[in-house]
Amino acid sequence: MLIANRGEIALRVARTCREMGVPCVAVHSTADAGAPFVAFADEAVCVGPPPSRRSYLYMPSLIEAARRHGADAVHPGYGFLSEDADFARVCAENGITFIGPAPEVMERVGDKARVRGLMAEAGLPVLPGSAGPVTSLAEAERIAAATTGYPVVVKAAAGGGGRGIAVAGSPAELRDAYRETVALARALFGNGDVYLERYVPGARHVEVQILCDGHGGAVHLGERDCSLQRRNQKLVEEAPAPGLSDGQRAELGRHAVRGALSVGYTGAGTMEFLLAPDGAATFMEINARIQVEHPVTEMITGLDLVREQIRIAAGEALGYTQHDVRLDGAAVECRINAEDPGAEFRPTPGRLDRLDLPGGPGIRVDAGFVAGGTVPPYYDSLIAKLVAWGGTREQAIARAERALAETVVDGPGMRTTIPLLRRLLGHPVFADGRHTTGFVNDLLAGGL
Amino acid sequence: MLIANRGEIALRVARTCREMGVPCVAVHSTADAGAPFVAFADEAVCVGPPPSRRSYLYMPSLIEAARRHGADAVHPGYGFLSEDADFARVCAENGITFIGPAPEVMERVGDKARVRGLMAEAGLPVLPGSAGPVTSLAEAERIAAATTGYPVVVKAAAGGGGRGIAVAGSPAELRDAYRETVALARALFGNGDVYLERYVPGARHVEVQILCDGHGGAVHLGERDCSLQRRNQKLVEEAPAPGLSDGQRAELGRHAVRGALSVGYTGAGTMEFLLAPDGAATFMEINARIQVEHPVTEMITGLDLVREQIRIAAGEALGYTQHDVRLDGAAVECRINAEDPGAEFRPTPGRLDRLDLPGGPGIRVDAGFVAGGTVPPYYDSLIAKLVAWGGTREQAIARAERALAETVVDGPGMRTTIPLLRRLLGHPVFADGRHTTGFVNDLLAGGL
Repeated sequence: MLIANRGEIALRVARTCREMGVPCVAVHSTADAGAPFVAFADEAVCVGPPPSRRSYLYMPSLIEAARRHGADAVHPGYGFLSEDADFARVCAENGITFIGPAPEVMERVGDKARVRGLMAEAGLPVLPGSAGPVTSLAEAERIAAATTGYPVVVKAAAGGGGRGIAVAGSPAELRDAYRETVALARALFGNGDVYLERYVPGARHVEVQILCDGHGGAVHLGERDCSLQRRNQKLVEEAPAPGLSDGQRAELGRHAVRGALSVGYTGAGTMEFLLAPDGAATFMEINARIQVEHPVTEMITGLDLVREQIRIAAGEALGYTQHDVRLDGAAVECRINAEDPGAEFRPTPGRLDRLDLPGGPGIRVDAGFVAGGTVPPYYDSLIAKLVAWGGTREQAIARAERALAETVVDGPGMRTTIPLLRRLLGHPVFADGRHTTGFVNDLLAGGL
Repeated sequence: MLIANRGEIALRVARTCREMGVPCVAVHSTADAGAPFVAFADEAVCVGPPPSRRSYLYMPSLIEAARRHGADAVHPGYGFLSEDADFARVCAENGITFIGPAPEVMERVGDKARVRGLMAEAGLPVLPGSAGPVTSLAEAERIAAATTGYPVVVKAAAGGGGRGIAVAGSPAELRDAYRETVALARALFGNGDVYLERYVPGARHVEVQILCDGHGGAVHLGERDCSLQRRNQKLVEEAPAPGLSDGQRAELGRHAVRGALSVGYTGAGTMEFLLAPDGAATFMEINARIQVEHPVTEMITGLDLVREQIRIAAGEALGYTQHDVRLDGAAVECRINAEDPGAEFRPTPGRLDRLDLPGGPGIRVDAGFVAGGTVPPYYDSLIAKLVAWGGTREQAIARAERALAETVVDGPGMRTTIPLLRRLLGHPVFADGRHTTGFVNDLLAGGL
């Protein structure tokens, strides 16, 4: 198998390959030649220099690497080409199994402006919004006036990872939000389509992990709460989501499975929901890939989601039903990033002179680096994911705090999210599960 | 709480203290001043230079440190003073709670020559052997001739950690074994008492973890197999023990709890059994402390055994019964030691220029060092314990092998057990669960 990614997720996938006895090929840029995922893979190929469009996103090199090394499957990880239906098609044309849903399913769920409508047809609750892409400011203003009201959120249809999102509180703000988002969507995703959705203040981000085997077997693995975000990017994730009733959990799970099956989804995927302060959950989007935060689900289910992805891609049936899925305890993931929370999360790439990672009971670490390595400036700033399991949410949080306290990351100019993560985990609002997606910003603004 | 130990177990205990909100004091020798357990504890005191009798074993310094820092409890870890009833008494006299059984219970179970008789009275199966300490060679010869037959094993009554054990296949060999073991027991333990037991060839080492709360609450947490040993010291441990029937497991568990309650045991403890090739289990000894291999039990139960020790020492009831104890999956622990398996396990202390520890799904690491640290020559050679969990034994082993493959330990003259551990884990005899306590020696002798 070829792993078309880098950093901790490439190593993560290689680990499962090794455990399954599947030989794997790492591809890497010149900037990542010394990375642990390259050293650990059975074979490795340099596919070009940074930036990513010349290596990790450059399909001809990836396909050529797969062909040369006899890889008959590709795992795309997250980001990069993981949600690119064209790449899945190119793989198929070259006789390579793309580990993910079918290209046409990826397209269907990747169009975030239209998937809302499909999910509404499948019976999932969706927020009032546009029925598809909005093609002019005038149309946006009509929809805002007639359907969503204000505040309204403008989102890039091809967006992801929290980029291409703007909130408008008035028609005047909508004008700016619309234009900025269209421009940003074109620049970032090569696709200027945007859509509108009612903005729900004080909401939480809750998502459901699903697995569908393409033989009719489909389960959900409970929810994750990912409300602690900085600039719409997740910082802390946990499973299960705190404060939901058993009925709410069961309903979210049913919605997620029904929605996924309705579009012919196969593999591992995430159904994202907004949870309003009144407890109402509405469908937000589908992530057709493994997610950064998947380990918290692994910790409470005992499953290896990458293994499940590989098994499903190989045509295997799940072999278990919803009834067999058992959720045990609670897990919290903290993203240790090379960035300065005190300077608007400016990345601080560079050498890691020290990288002392935590251990002991209940602690799992997925790191992309080892001591002595270098965080390159070309990619995301994730150094390591620290995941803590506990019999209760309280214990999982106590363990995560303890593990953060023993983590040492140091190097010239290096700053990390660790001090902020410790502040977040120790905050009574988080302890009580009262945090919303605005919490980190509020905290940093000194408003709490 | 004062932690009267060093290395990974001192850090292990400090981690739980931190999670419980219990401030802890580390004591350390001059050789350990830079160790992670010292850095992580809330306070730290240097109690003297190596060797251990001048620091970790020197009670006046430990008690003084506890008094100065206001510690009202002491966790002894394993080794050092953990099974020393006198230390427990000195703690009590100074108003300090010793985290372990009462001193008189420690004495009762610490006399390995006599505890066999106590357990036989409690209804546990024991091997034919001496009724108590053997005080002359003539007596040993009589017992071997009349009771045990040959081969017979001579053991130090105050022994532990696999030291002070000799097997004799004939009266001539018994003469040497007796004299050597008495001399060794005097030198190592200050007590020349020895006892005799029938030697069972091809046996496995199976032990049961118990918890007794002193209020009548007592549970066992399943068994561990610790048959992979070098020079009677464990290298690989796993839970549950492979190849036992449910009936055998249940019976071992009942024996363990009954035996422990019969001597008034409180706290966490281990009941060790020999498992003969015919499946007959016989009581061997009681370890009145937390054991090196306790994490495999934690991985399959979700419990924190150090937390349970602290709770019990604080007078709390367990709060659960045998019925509530759930064992999930399988776990394997590998001891990564600084020693050369190719040179009779000669220790190779020194600087750790690289220490890249593994991570990812199912992996827990308990390390006593970080990269850049130094393994001192004065203590045991344990660098880190690598623990792998899997839904099945097969998966746990595959994960342990994968994790060993990504572990890098390097420094001047440094050798480790990693190559041997990889060979053991990959061996079909281990995969089939057919390994006995002689397996490592046979393998190293090239006999397999």
